[in-house]
Amino acid sequence: MRISLDAMGGDHAPRTTVEGAVETVLETQDIEVVLVGDTDRIRAELKGKRYPEERLSILHASEQVEMEDDISTAIRRKRDSSIRRGIELVKNGEADAFVSAGHSGVVMALSLLMLGKSEGVHRPAIATTMPTLTTPFVLLDAGANVDSDPENLLQFALMGRAFSKRILGIEEPRVALLSIGEEDTKGNELTKEAFKLIKNTGINFIGNIEGKDIFTGQADVIVCDGFVGNIVLKVSEGLADTIIKMLKREIANIATGKLAYMLMKPALRNFKRKTDYSEYGGAPLLGINGTCLISHGRSSSKAIRNALKLANKFAKQRFYQEIVAELARYRDVLSQPSEQPEPV
Amino acid sequence: MRISLDAMGGDHAPRTTVEGAVETVLETQDIEVVLVGDTDRIRAELKGKRYPEERLSILHASEQVEMEDDISTAIRRKRDSSIRRGIELVKNGEADAFVSAGHSGVVMALSLLMLGKSEGVHRPAIATTMPTLTTPFVLLDAGANVDSDPENLLQFALMGRAFSKRILGIEEPRVALLSIGEEDTKGNELTKEAFKLIKNTGINFIGNIEGKDIFTGQADVIVCDGFVGNIVLKVSEGLADTIIKMLKREIANIATGKLAYMLMKPALRNFKRKTDYSEYGGAPLLGINGTCLISHGRSSSKAIRNALKLANKFAKQRFYQEIVAELARYRDVLSQPSEQPEPV
Repeated sequence: MRISLDAMGGDHAPRTTVEGAVETVLETQDIEVVLVGDTDRIRAELKGKRYPEERLSILHASEQVEMEDDISTAIRRKRDSSIRRGIELVKNGEADAFVSAGHSGVVMALSLLMLGKSEGVHRPAIATTMPTLTTPFVLLDAGANVDSDPENLLQFALMGRAFSKRILGIEEPRVALLSIGEEDTKGNELTKEAFKLIKNTGINFIGNIEGKDIFTGQADVIVCDGFVGNIVLKVSEGLADTIIKMLKREIANIATGKLAYMLMKPALRNFKRKTDYSEYGGAPLLGINGTCLISHGRSSSKAIRNALKLANKFAKQRFYQEIVAELARYRDVLSQPSEQPEPV
Repeated sequence: MRISLDAMGGDHAPRTTVEGAVETVLETQDIEVVLVGDTDRIRAELKGKRYPEERLSILHASEQVEMEDDISTAIRRKRDSSIRRGIELVKNGEADAFVSAGHSGVVMALSLLMLGKSEGVHRPAIATTMPTLTTPFVLLDAGANVDSDPENLLQFALMGRAFSKRILGIEEPRVALLSIGEEDTKGNELTKEAFKLIKNTGINFIGNIEGKDIFTGQADVIVCDGFVGNIVLKVSEGLADTIIKMLKREIANIATGKLAYMLMKPALRNFKRKTDYSEYGGAPLLGINGTCLISHGRSSSKAIRNALKLANKFAKQRFYQEIVAELARYRDVLSQPSEQPEPV
C-alpha cells in the first residue's frame, strides 16, 4: 500500500516523521511512503540515511499548518499545506491512506471536506485506542463531533466494533456505553436513548460502563459523544502525567529516593512501554470515504512507524468500505419494529 | 454546631462512622454529633471508647439504605432509614448539617425533597474537591444532575466560586469552564452558551480549560454539567488506581523491585496522603436549603472526621443562605442587557 504522510505534522517534525518513514520502509516490504511537505527540510533529514528509494518519495507542499492555526482560516488560506496535499493523494487514488500528527482539527475537517462521509454514515468519529490493566480498548468518539444524537452513538458502536473486530482482531468485541451508572436506566437523555438503540442490534453489548471501570479491561469498545470522549482522553493524559510527576517529586524528596529510583528504573521503563500511546500509532477517523489516521502531536518516530503500519492494515482491508456494509446490515435490523422488550 | 451523621453509610460503617464521630468530638470543642442508625450496632462500636458524652448522641433508625438500592424504591419504602432520619433533623432545626457516606443518589434526592432548593437556584450541584500538582480545585457539578442548560452552568460557576472563596479561603477564585479547546468558541452548544453567560458576570473567569490541564492547578473552580463531571471524577479515580496497580506490578516483576519498593515506601505514603480524597472529607450539595455533605463510600474514619469539620464550617457560616444572596446579586447583573461586547 502507498501511504501519504504529513511530514510537517507533529511537535518534532520533520525529524520524527522522516525517521518513522525510513524505519517503516526498512522494516516492511509492502509499504510505500510519500513524505508530503517542504522538500528541502525533508531532504535535509533524509541526508545520510539509507533506505529503499523506490518506496520512499517526496511530494512538495509549500505551506504547513501550525498547531495554533484556526481551522477555517487554515483551510481557506493554506491551499498548499502538507495536510491538504496529503489528503489530495488519497482523493485522487494516488495513495491508499493518509497519516498526520499535525493539527487534528484541520486533518478532520479537510478529510471530511475532500473525501466525504461514507454512505449511510451520519457523522464520522475518531477512534482512540487506550491501554488498561489487561487489554486495550477503543474509545469513540474521541472528538470528531461536539454534539451527537442517539443514532450517532449507535453508529459509533457499530463502527468501533468493526474496528475492534477486523483490525485489532478481537473475535466478539464487548461494546459498552459510557455513562454514570451501570443500570440500564442510568444516564442522560442521550445515553438512555442510545442504550435502547444499541441493545436492539443484538451485538455483544455489555451495557453501561462507569468512568471508574474503563481502565479495568471490561470492554473492548467504549462509546460516548465526542465532547465527553475528548475530555476523557485529555483528562486521562493529564492525570497520568500528573501522577508520574508527583510520584517522582515525592521520591526525589526522601533520603533513599535516589537509590530507589535507580533500582526501579527498569520497572518504570516497562510501565511506560505498556502505557505508551505510540504503541497504537494513531487514531483512525471512521466513517469517511478513505483511510485517514490522526497521530498524537507528541509522536515519536516509533509512533509514526506504528501509525503507518496501522494505516497499511486499514488500507489493505479497504476497511472504510467494510464500514458501509456493516452499517447497512444493521440499518435493516433497525428499521423494523423491535421484537425485544424495552429495557426496564 | 450540631451535625447529624448517617452512622450506617459507607463501606465500613458503622465502625468508621462511629470512630470518626468519636475522634471529632475529642478533637474539637464546638461540634456535637448525632449518630443516626441502628442503636445496638452503634452502641457496640462505642463500647470501651471514652468521649464527651454530652456532645455525642444516638438517634435510632431501624432501616438502612444499601448501595444497590434503587433510589425511588429506597425513598418510598425505607421510611425509617438513617439517611431520612438524619436529614429530618436538619429539616426540623434539630441539627445544623447532615453528613453521609452512604448511597449518594438517595442522599441527594432526599435532601432535595425534604429540604428543598434554595431561593433562586435552578438546580443543586455536587461540588467535589480534587488534588492537583499544586493547589486543589473544586469540580462541579460532579453528578447531581444529568442534563443541564447554560444557565445551570452559570449558577454552578457562582456557587462553586462562593464555596472556594468562603469555605476554602481562596481570595479571588479562578473559575474555568471544562471544554474541548481553550479558545472562547470551542465546545458544544451547552458550553458555548454558558461561556458567554459566565463571562458576562465579571467574576475572575479564566475561560475554557481542557481535560489535560485540570490537574495542573490553573483553576480553583472548574464548571461542567453533572454527566461530564461525574465521568471526569470516576475516570480520574479509576485511572489513579490503575496506574498505581500497574506500577506496583511492574516493580514486583523486576529483581531489584522489592528493595526499590522498600526504599520508596515513605514517598508512596506522602503521595497517597497528598492525593487522598479523605483529606477533603466530603462534597457539599450546593443549592439546597440546608447543609448536606456527601462523603466517599470508601470513607475512612479520617474522611468522616474531615467531613464533620467541613460540615461545621458550612453550618457556622450558614453558607446555604450566602448562596442565595450571591445568586441574587448576579441575577440583577444578568437581567440587564449586556454592556460588554460579545466574545469573538
